[in-house]
Amino acid sequence: MNTSFPFTATECVDAFTRGDCSAVEIAEATLARIEMVNSTLNAFTEITAPRMRREAELVDSARRQNQPLGPLAAVPYAVKNLFDVEGITTLAGAKLYEQCPPASRDADLVNKLNRAGGLLAGTLNMDAYAYGFTTENSHYGATHNPRNTTRSAGGSSGGTGAAVAAGLVPIGLASDTNGSIRVPSSLCGVFGLKPTYGRLSRTGTQMFVSSLDHLGPLATTTEDLALAYDALQGSDPLDPACALRPIEPTRRGLNQDIDGLRIARLTGYFDEHAGPQALWASQTAARVLGASREIELPGVAAARSAAYLITASESGALYQDRLRTQIDLFEPLSRDRLIAGSLIPAAWYQQALRYRRWYLERVMHLFRDVDVLIAPATPITAPLLGQPSFTLGNREFATRPNMGLLTQPISFIGLPVAIAPLWPEGGLPMGLQIIAPPWREDLCLHVARVLEQTGLASSRTPRG
Amino acid sequence: MNTSFPFTATECVDAFTRGDCSAVEIAEATLARIEMVNSTLNAFTEITAPRMRREAELVDSARRQNQPLGPLAAVPYAVKNLFDVEGITTLAGAKLYEQCPPASRDADLVNKLNRAGGLLAGTLNMDAYAYGFTTENSHYGATHNPRNTTRSAGGSSGGTGAAVAAGLVPIGLASDTNGSIRVPSSLCGVFGLKPTYGRLSRTGTQMFVSSLDHLGPLATTTEDLALAYDALQGSDPLDPACALRPIEPTRRGLNQDIDGLRIARLTGYFDEHAGPQALWASQTAARVLGASREIELPGVAAARSAAYLITASESGALYQDRLRTQIDLFEPLSRDRLIAGSLIPAAWYQQALRYRRWYLERVMHLFRDVDVLIAPATPITAPLLGQPSFTLGNREFATRPNMGLLTQPISFIGLPVAIAPLWPEGGLPMGLQIIAPPWREDLCLHVARVLEQTGLASSRTPRG
Repeated sequence: MNTSFPFTATECVDAFTRGDCSAVEIAEATLARIEMVNSTLNAFTEITAPRMRREAELVDSARRQNQPLGPLAAVPYAVKNLFDVEGITTLAGAKLYEQCPPASRDADLVNKLNRAGGLLAGTLNMDAYAYGFTTENSHYGATHNPRNTTRSAGGSSGGTGAAVAAGLVPIGLASDTNGSIRVPSSLCGVFGLKPTYGRLSRTGTQMFVSSLDHLGPLATTTEDLALAYDALQGSDPLDPACALRPIEPTRRGLNQDIDGLRIARLTGYFDEHAGPQALWASQTAARVLGASREIELPGVAAARSAAYLITASESGALYQDRLRTQIDLFEPLSRDRLIAGSLIPAAWYQQALRYRRWYLERVMHLFRDVDVLIAPATPITAPLLGQPSFTLGNREFATRPNMGLLTQPISFIGLPVAIAPLWPEGGLPMGLQIIAPPWREDLCLHVARVLEQTGLASSRTPRG
Repeated sequence: MNTSFPFTATECVDAFTRGDCSAVEIAEATLARIEMVNSTLNAFTEITAPRMRREAELVDSARRQNQPLGPLAAVPYAVKNLFDVEGITTLAGAKLYEQCPPASRDADLVNKLNRAGGLLAGTLNMDAYAYGFTTENSHYGATHNPRNTTRSAGGSSGGTGAAVAAGLVPIGLASDTNGSIRVPSSLCGVFGLKPTYGRLSRTGTQMFVSSLDHLGPLATTTEDLALAYDALQGSDPLDPACALRPIEPTRRGLNQDIDGLRIARLTGYFDEHAGPQALWASQTAARVLGASREIELPGVAAARSAAYLITASESGALYQDRLRTQIDLFEPLSRDRLIAGSLIPAAWYQQALRYRRWYLERVMHLFRDVDVLIAPATPITAPLLGQPSFTLGNREFATRPNMGLLTQPISFIGLPVAIAPLWPEGGLPMGLQIIAPPWREDLCLHVARVLEQTGLASSRTPRG
């Protein structure tokens, strides 16, 4: 700890536990920092100051009474605004929901963080419905990237990426359907974890694409990321996708040796869709990790297409009734995609599901010979807000739907991925995807930790 | 055993093991009986006499050499023509496949029966693609019901129902997507078992609706049914739906007491769609079993609609390429349904899948208070061949698509069901569905056995 006031989650817990500061002091400092910075970033859509103060007082009171303290005691956090927060309307970035009644209870993961001692600072901006990769929201405004406020924070969890990167909260929760945790982590330069599909409960969150939706944390250090992830684990009978898995703590093992790990760099599609900074990140990480092996995944482009098709079709189905009756309330940036998605024939959808099974089998086969795969998280570093397209080689790609080029083929089959922020020349960060077989989040975190320890990966976050 | 020649599978095994007769004698007697009767019934589409004789000689030779004999040693059987049989083109009832090359190996279940000592007599007629409940096949002809040859044997596994009911083979294999094992068992008056979805391997069979397709045996006694089922068990990594389950033998426990079982009769939808014979079967069985409790399933009609929608959509997707290029080869009786199915929007399909999850949860909830459910298998006894419709109360139903009215809501969620043949007045049989929670085929078989022991259920099959 090299500052006078706790900054990371781990520092908060330690300082609070030692008695260096109270939870109320941490909450007030957090709220003050948010107050100062948020008008520039537009990361928060709601600041839950009264609740945060109440929670801080409870934690302080527990300490005074020598009650056991949770692993996140006095740690501020905030959540993408698709998580239910009692007393607040769950927006999911959409004007469509603005008139809905407030949530009557917290989402399961919010509950878990609160039970662990966390202090909720507020809810965070996002692309409407989680459909988009830039957090340009026609109704709630764009979120600005704290590394350069003319640039996008990525999406759809741009508010979470910006809030964590700006040091407003040490831990943020987000969702990832096709890259919505990994793209903002990459563009904002923070650590992020998209766990295995089915690992964390989604009860009390607004769904987007049920068969692809994941939830997970963002943080500024691997230790904080593991701390948050451990507190979020636990099966939930109310989420039909949530697997009955034991809690597998990862934080304590973080300093584990990775000498025996067989790490391979993904080439082929992943190199072809990587700009210079992305390629640098992947190659540099491979060198630092001693990953001499390079492999190609089979049928990656088709996997991305199939992920797209499932996304369009399930989200179109989810919104089709409202598209018929409330079309004016829809986000103009995704309205057409939702309408088109609702018209997709079942035969296409089924073909995409079949392809998913085939692709998973092929990738699992590769995992017999390798433990961890690495690839860039985004084709480019943060684009300008409003930038309509970017180029790779001599191909032009529309920005908003294509920032997930490298993330979609991985989440398509639910593999766990950690993002480690690397810093190519030019001042903007580039995330590295660290990909493991299902249920091996621990491997993702160990490798991210090694990159952090070597100094290659870091959130370089300004201390308050 | 009260005849001079073995008739049931159990009798065949016993007679052969004792040395009363050879496998070749059993095979020749079987082929002679088929030769005599099949021209009337049109149950077989191919008689595999050379193979059957070869298999019989191998079994005889194994006995001469004192090698261990399988549990089905010298037992004749036949399979619906959607099972791959090496050297024969797999028709699935369809002219569409007539020009396809012969199968290069046996289906997994054919393999299992052969390894158990079974003798394959041939392949059996069915509705094209397994789409239909009457085995009226425009290309391969209708199968006639051995109880009354002017009547339908049911479908889509009518050939299997007729062959077993006529005593041509003691064991037949069939598939059941919406009722295709249960409807022919009911109409032909034999025992049948549709195991839990995912219990038996489907490798090497022509699929129809992957998420609803089940395979299973038909037989003339519960002991034979359990004998066949036990030989068919075993997980298969090549069938993605086939669950990794241990083999759970059922035959030995068949005489188990069912005194403690909580058996309930299904009412509501099931009574409303039951003609007089169906109602008689359900009520009489309830009385004999001491099942005083009656319960209603929630949302049964919607469950049937959803099963229909999934069927239309998955089968339409399966055939859509061929519908574009080979429309003339399609069965006129199901062509239009396949075309319509291929156009269903993904949103409808997804809604049906969601409903399936909801409905399964509700039904599983009911199984906390009850062990076994009973209901009629078909709304009416065997209709005339060509009969366009039947009436229930004052509602008219098209025959071909509606004989599964009572079976579809059960297979929709993959529950195991045994059929016990009962005999209402009028001479035609009526099957009873005995329904258990997933993986409890043993309960279905125990209850069927009790009905058989009381004399209420019987296949009344003419001895050869």
